[in-house]
Amino acid sequence: MKIAVVGLGLIGGSMALVLKQKGFATKVFGVDNQEAHTLKALELGIVDEITNLDDAIANSDLIILSAPVSACATLLPLVLDQVKHQIVLDTGSTKMSLLDAVKGHAKRGRYIATHPMWGTEFSGPEAATEDAFDGRANVICNATESDKDALATVEHLYTLLGMYNVYMEGKDHDVHVAYVSHISHITSFALANTVLEKEKEENAIFELASAGFESTVRLAKSSPAMWMPIFKQNKENVLDVLNEHITQLRKFKSCIEKENWAYLTELMENANKIKHVLDREE
Amino acid sequence: MKIAVVGLGLIGGSMALVLKQKGFATKVFGVDNQEAHTLKALELGIVDEITNLDDAIANSDLIILSAPVSACATLLPLVLDQVKHQIVLDTGSTKMSLLDAVKGHAKRGRYIATHPMWGTEFSGPEAATEDAFDGRANVICNATESDKDALATVEHLYTLLGMYNVYMEGKDHDVHVAYVSHISHITSFALANTVLEKEKEENAIFELASAGFESTVRLAKSSPAMWMPIFKQNKENVLDVLNEHITQLRKFKSCIEKENWAYLTELMENANKIKHVLDREE
Repeated sequence: MKIAVVGLGLIGGSMALVLKQKGFATKVFGVDNQEAHTLKALELGIVDEITNLDDAIANSDLIILSAPVSACATLLPLVLDQVKHQIVLDTGSTKMSLLDAVKGHAKRGRYIATHPMWGTEFSGPEAATEDAFDGRANVICNATESDKDALATVEHLYTLLGMYNVYMEGKDHDVHVAYVSHISHITSFALANTVLEKEKEENAIFELASAGFESTVRLAKSSPAMWMPIFKQNKENVLDVLNEHITQLRKFKSCIEKENWAYLTELMENANKIKHVLDREE
Repeated sequence: MKIAVVGLGLIGGSMALVLKQKGFATKVFGVDNQEAHTLKALELGIVDEITNLDDAIANSDLIILSAPVSACATLLPLVLDQVKHQIVLDTGSTKMSLLDAVKGHAKRGRYIATHPMWGTEFSGPEAATEDAFDGRANVICNATESDKDALATVEHLYTLLGMYNVYMEGKDHDVHVAYVSHISHITSFALANTVLEKEKEENAIFELASAGFESTVRLAKSSPAMWMPIFKQNKENVLDVLNEHITQLRKFKSCIEKENWAYLTELMENANKIKHVLDREE
């Protein structure tokens, strides 16, 4: 199958690599508005040919939109306008803006809204890897609005990536990811700023930073170009969770201020329960 | 050299394992007020003999205090009271409470205040591992207050663990660790509580939790029995950093509320600078 990847970053690049390796993609057309990305993707063998969007659509059977979500929300209706038999999927971290953008579109059935739950703090085609995705969930939203053949192909594609498919409504998806992904990024960005603001001795950070600190602050290396649109598109859900997070932090603050060590211990014991949720298959 | 390990948890247990493997410890006496820990440590070959504190001190050349910091602050003067030639070190995450507890003690010189900057979210002797410590910093505080021979032995001990020694005053240490360790734990505990509080669908957390979320929330599995005393002993520094962290989070909140996407991007770009600090040897 000929595929087009629009947005040659970590996700689109990794998908192209694995789909070629698995024999699913016989030819990969790459589209990206950054020339450095197109050159790098060619050099790394992620794509076979760089082309413009119109030619990529016309020459492909399946189009993967893996640009930042704001760009995808703009592109998706334009792509569907040109689609005949082709299948279009996006990999964006929020789903409602895309679903809304093509509601009632004549070719709506050719589009599958997906969100592979994998990523790293790195970006660009040089971050793409064949070891991506394996064992993680891929979310498919509003599956009943998609054509059955298109859906079946995309389900198969994600299975080839080693992922398992999970189905939910776009509205629910956007709430859940605010909890399990977006807030982690804000926390991590803010933690990095906290340390950079107050700890002027870089040597101390560098030498004392334990594995725990690195793990908590890792996401602060993430790309603002990717995350600003996510926070923008999922504004209400993100604010809701962020407010709750600040409330929770204020509980810790109040316990320490008032030396209420019993309640502080309770708060930590409650937090320990996350272990059962995360590790429940172990 | 015969050593005693008081507190058979992750740190004390791992030290005993590596020091035996390296031939530094010819016999290890274990002391712990939890019988389950002593039995497990014997079973795992972490210690050779379980004994009471007095006998452990009398029969050892070097005593490692690796109980929670509050217990160590109480134990340290009592241990020094019984010391003749022996060396005593502790591995606690805060240092001022211990340094203050033995200020002016006749045997002060036999004590070395250390903090190996390594740990995991797991605790107890069963978490002990021979792969611990390697490549990380060990902090030695107020080194000039320790006898030269005792200091040299402890420096050598940490080198055998694969660590490099860093020297600072206890007061500075307690400020720095508030930034690079203690705040990460509070953030992570609070993040877990945020998600557990608001996201009632455990299935959604479990299936959608990406590697990013797991990495940010990992420390929330940490032991309250270890961390409550740390927050207690380092109260002022922790509150100082926690206040700053809440301020930083409120900046993100304000940007998203007011849709000030340019300033939100700036905040994230600033956070990205943590990369240069953490990765500067790469």
